Amino acid sequence: MSSRRIYVLRLGHRPQRDKRISTHVGLVARAFGAHGIIYSGGKDENLLRSLRKVVDLWGGDFDIRYESDWREVIREWKERGGVVIHLTMYGENIASSDVLKRIKETGADLLIVVGAEKVPGRLFELADFNVAIGNQPHSEVAALALFLDRLYAGRELLKEFKGAKLRIVPQSKGKKVIYSLK
Amino acid sequence: MSSRRIYVLRLGHRPQRDKRISTHVGLVARAFGAHGIIYSGGKDENLLRSLRKVVDLWGGDFDIRYESDWREVIREWKERGGVVIHLTMYGENIASSDVLKRIKETGADLLIVVGAEKVPGRLFELADFNVAIGNQPHSEVAALALFLDRLYAGRELLKEFKGAKLRIVPQSKGKKVIYSLK
Repeated sequence: MSSRRIYVLRLGHRPQRDKRISTHVGLVARAFGAHGIIYSGGKDENLLRSLRKVVDLWGGDFDIRYESDWREVIREWKERGGVVIHLTMYGENIASSDVLKRIKETGADLLIVVGAEKVPGRLFELADFNVAIGNQPHSEVAALALFLDRLYAGRELLKEFKGAKLRIVPQSKGKKVIYSLK
Repeated sequence: MSSRRIYVLRLGHRPQRDKRISTHVGLVARAFGAHGIIYSGGKDENLLRSLRKVVDLWGGDFDIRYESDWREVIREWKERGGVVIHLTMYGENIASSDVLKRIKETGADLLIVVGAEKVPGRLFELADFNVAIGNQPHSEVAALALFLDRLYAGRELLKEFKGAKLRIVPQSKGKKVIYSLK
């Protein structure tokens, strides 16, 4: 895996309405090799707690935070030389443009921003790259997974998570989980 | 794209709780090249209606249905020579096994089954292939997107949707949508 730091910034979380989608965004960020997630919008301790529980059980280092001011998160990220990527169906198509190549060439840490239903128009300007995982409506969960999969060229699906209490042994039928509760 | 028929079967939909995740599953199925989706579990006319509206605006042929008996859907699919794939974190890892190759070699129509939180154990037996998009907990939305992306080798992100009223023209900044309202 690359040594660059990769964080996800989830905008506009609404605790009632977005609970499950925001959880999926966090799980995908972790499973597909990001180093952390920052939630913005409504503060939701349950969401943070349930994700931390997953990290505790399934291992790895994965930072989970809430920040009320997403503009400040972006400002700081850029100030430290990081690059901001906004995943949006309106952006440059990852499949038909060289946008992924240009992102990789920056060599910089990446902040991947995914919004809830409506994102502030200003974000398109603040982002260094607006990237579309296809130009059809679908899901920020899928967009994030595909972006990370392309970035890591599929290697993230083989990642080992250190300190895991639970590990799956892949099976063609049924479930096999190894518990190592220290 | 391949000429085989590819359908998604979404199990155990609960209209209140799963509304948004099930919508994302349907949008991903369409955007990533499946030919249709069958929902099972609680009947939810609003879900079907909102997806049909997306198809009407964004084009393409995409079949959206509800069937109360998912076992019957699987039985019929197999009877007609189709193959059933269950996406599950417990299955054979798509990145470290030859499971995708074996699926492609069947040459058969594919029914891709994704569950809500808890799937019936029987499904592992009924499926011809139990496939893991990595063996970490994440999201059926991401799993479906990744599976279709691997199956189509990325070409699905360039797919043209016939009869679209709305089309996005990819932009590095901002939004450009072409409306062709006939």
